[in-house]
Amino acid sequence: MKVPTIIPFPEISAARERIQEAILPTPLTFSHRFSKRFGREVYIKWDNALRTGSFKERGALNFLSKLSKEEKNRGVCAASAGNHALAVAYHCREQEIPCSLFMPLRAPLVKVQTATSFGAEVTLHGELLRDSYAQALLMSKQEKRVFVPGYDHRDIIAGAGVSGVEISEQLEEFDSVIVPIGGGGLVAGIASAIRALRKDIFILGVRSEWSSQQHDGEDARFVSTPLADGIAVKELGTIPKRIIQEQVDQIVSVRENTIADAVIAYLYEERSVIEGAGAAALAALLEGHLPERCKRVVLLACGSNIDLHVLGKLIQRSQYERGQLLRVRVSVPDRPGSLARLTEIIASESANVLETSHERGFSREPGNVDITFLLETRDKEHQSSLITRFAKLDLHPLQL
Amino acid sequence: MKVPTIIPFPEISAARERIQEAILPTPLTFSHRFSKRFGREVYIKWDNALRTGSFKERGALNFLSKLSKEEKNRGVCAASAGNHALAVAYHCREQEIPCSLFMPLRAPLVKVQTATSFGAEVTLHGELLRDSYAQALLMSKQEKRVFVPGYDHRDIIAGAGVSGVEISEQLEEFDSVIVPIGGGGLVAGIASAIRALRKDIFILGVRSEWSSQQHDGEDARFVSTPLADGIAVKELGTIPKRIIQEQVDQIVSVRENTIADAVIAYLYEERSVIEGAGAAALAALLEGHLPERCKRVVLLACGSNIDLHVLGKLIQRSQYERGQLLRVRVSVPDRPGSLARLTEIIASESANVLETSHERGFSREPGNVDITFLLETRDKEHQSSLITRFAKLDLHPLQL
Repeated sequence: MKVPTIIPFPEISAARERIQEAILPTPLTFSHRFSKRFGREVYIKWDNALRTGSFKERGALNFLSKLSKEEKNRGVCAASAGNHALAVAYHCREQEIPCSLFMPLRAPLVKVQTATSFGAEVTLHGELLRDSYAQALLMSKQEKRVFVPGYDHRDIIAGAGVSGVEISEQLEEFDSVIVPIGGGGLVAGIASAIRALRKDIFILGVRSEWSSQQHDGEDARFVSTPLADGIAVKELGTIPKRIIQEQVDQIVSVRENTIADAVIAYLYEERSVIEGAGAAALAALLEGHLPERCKRVVLLACGSNIDLHVLGKLIQRSQYERGQLLRVRVSVPDRPGSLARLTEIIASESANVLETSHERGFSREPGNVDITFLLETRDKEHQSSLITRFAKLDLHPLQL
Repeated sequence: MKVPTIIPFPEISAARERIQEAILPTPLTFSHRFSKRFGREVYIKWDNALRTGSFKERGALNFLSKLSKEEKNRGVCAASAGNHALAVAYHCREQEIPCSLFMPLRAPLVKVQTATSFGAEVTLHGELLRDSYAQALLMSKQEKRVFVPGYDHRDIIAGAGVSGVEISEQLEEFDSVIVPIGGGGLVAGIASAIRALRKDIFILGVRSEWSSQQHDGEDARFVSTPLADGIAVKELGTIPKRIIQEQVDQIVSVRENTIADAVIAYLYEERSVIEGAGAAALAALLEGHLPERCKRVVLLACGSNIDLHVLGKLIQRSQYERGQLLRVRVSVPDRPGSLARLTEIIASESANVLETSHERGFSREPGNVDITFLLETRDKEHQSSLITRFAKLDLHPLQL
C-alpha cells in the first residue's frame, strides 16, 4: 500500500461529520501577554479543553466510529503512555465498547487513574511504551480485538486534522502554526487540513530533545523521565513521517528546560494547566525557532494532563530562578539566643523562613554552629541585600 | 443621602455601554466534572478571564469613565490588597490617568509586581488594608486626587453588575448563583442585575471565615495570612450591605481548608488557576451550603491572582491528603550498607525518595540510627503496604 503524502481533505471533512456530535470545537484565543512578550500576534488553540484533556479524542473517536458492530462488541485494545489511552477509554465508554489498555509502569499517575475511572481495564506493563505496545498487539491477536493505533493510521490523522479546519474557520488571518510532535499524528493532520484551506502558512513541528537522544545504552534506572512525556516518542509513525516530509516546513527540537519554562508561562501568564508536551509549541517560540517574518502565529496547546506533583516541582524550580527561594548557610556562636537573634534579623528583612537545619559537628568555624535556612524572598535584589546584611554581621553567609 | 436597596437597572445598562468597548464579556461554561461531582448542573462564570485577572475591572472602568477631564488630569489614588489595584492601574494606563496605589506590606507579590508593570506608582504601607486606605485618603485630600473606592460606591457596583447581565444572556436556564463576598460590591451588583432580569433565582453570598473572626486582640505577627486574601475584608461597604440585606437570599462562611480544596479542584479538574477568593463559591458548594432544590447553579470564578508559591504549597498539602507524600521514620543498625538495603527496599516498592535525614544522637533503639524519609507514593493503600513491609522487617516505622 502506498504511503500518502497528505490526507485528502474529504477524509478530514468526513471525520468531522462523524465526530461533531460528540466533540465540540475547542476555543482559540488571542494571548495579550504572549503577544506582548514576543512582539507578534500570538493565538492559542486550546485542544487541551477536550473532555479528556488532550487533542487525542478526535482521532480516536473517528477510528472507533468506523468499526463494525461486531468489532465493537468484541472490544478493542490500545497501548499508550497516557493521552491516547484516556481518549480511547472515554469514547469506548460512550459507545459501550469493551476497552483494554496497556500503559508503561511509569505512566503519569493522573493518566492511569483517569483511564481507570472511565471504566477501561488498565494493565501497567513494562518500563517503556514499546513493552506495553507489544503486549497490546499480543492481546489483539489472541482475542481478535481491534487494536486502536495512537497515530500511525489515516483515520487517526484525519480526526486530528479537524483541529486544523477549526483553526482556519476561527481565525481570518494567520501566517504560521506551531505543533508539538510525538508520533506525528497531530501535525500530519493539521498540516493536511491547512494545506487544503490556506496558502503560505508556515508549519513548524516541535519535538522534545529527549526523542532525539539515545537512551538504549544507558542503565534504564538512571534515564530521567521526560517532562514532555506525551511527545517522548522515539520514532515517527510511517504515515505521519511521510506527510511531515512533504507538508511541514521545519522541525525543531526543544530542551527540557525550555519546556519547563513554557509550562510555568502557561500557568503564570495564561492561568492554565498545560502538560509538557502541550507546552512544546510555546517552548519553540521561547527558543526563537519561528522565523522573523511570521507575525501571526497559532500555538497548539494540545494537552493538560500533568501530574500535580510535577507541576509543584516546576513551580519550585521557577521560584529559585525568580529569586523567590534562597538557600543560605550562616555561622553563629553556639550559645543560647543565637538563633533567636538570627531569625529576628531575617524577619526584619521581610524574608520568610521555610526550613532550617543545624550542623553542629561539622561547622566551618570552631565554637560556632552552621545553620542552613531555606527562605522565601521577593526577588534576587532582596536576596543580595540579605546576604550583604549577613556578611556585615560577620555571619559568613554561603549561598547554596 | 439615602442608601439604595438595589442599583436600578438603567444604571447597570449605562455602565455596560460605557465599558463595552474596552471589556468584552467573559466566558461562561458548563463544568462536566463539577456537575458529575455535585449531581447538579454546574456552570462557571470566568470573570478571572479579564485582562488583570479579576472581576474588579468593570467597576473600576465605569467609575473612571465618569470622571471629568480635569479630574483625570489631576490623577487618582486607591488602596487595595490586590485586584482592585490592578484594575485601577490597568485602566488608568489605558486612559492616561496618573495613578497612585497604596497596598499593605503583605499584599501578594504577584499583585504588587503586576500593578507596577502597568505603570502605577505603588506604595507599600501598613500591616493591614485599613492603614493603606488611610494613607490613600490622605493623599486624595492633600493632592486633590479622586479616590477610587474598591466597592462602596454605586458606580463600582453598577459596573460589577454587568456580569449578572452577561450571565442572564449567556444561560437560558439557571436557578441559583453563588458569589464570593469581600466588601460586597460584586454580589450587590450581580444581585441588582439578576433581580431585574430573572425571577426566583436563589442568590448565595460567600464570605471567608477569616472575615468573621476577631483578630484585633491578637499579636498581629501570629495572625495567619488568609488564603482568600481577596475577600479578607472585615466590614461590608455601607451600600453593598444594604443591597445584600434586601436582595441576597443567604450568606454563608466557608473554612480556609475548604477554600484550599476548592483552589486545588479548579486546578485539577478544570485545569485553571483560581485564587482563594475566586474559589470561595466552589467552597460553598463543597461545604453543602446550596439548598437541595437548586439544580442549575452558576459559580462566580472571579479572580486568578494567586502567588505561585502559595499554589505550590496547596499542591503539596493536597498530595499529603491524597496519600501521595509519606513522611516516615525507620530505625536501622548503624553500620555500612544499612541505607543501601533500605533504599533498595523502597525502590522495589516503587516509592520515590524526595528527602532523607539521619538522627544519630537521638535514635530510639540503642546501636541503631533513625532515618526519616519523605517519599512520593501512589495513594494511601500504597503507603500502608510500605509501612507494613517496614514493620515486618523490624524497622519500627513511625509515620510522621
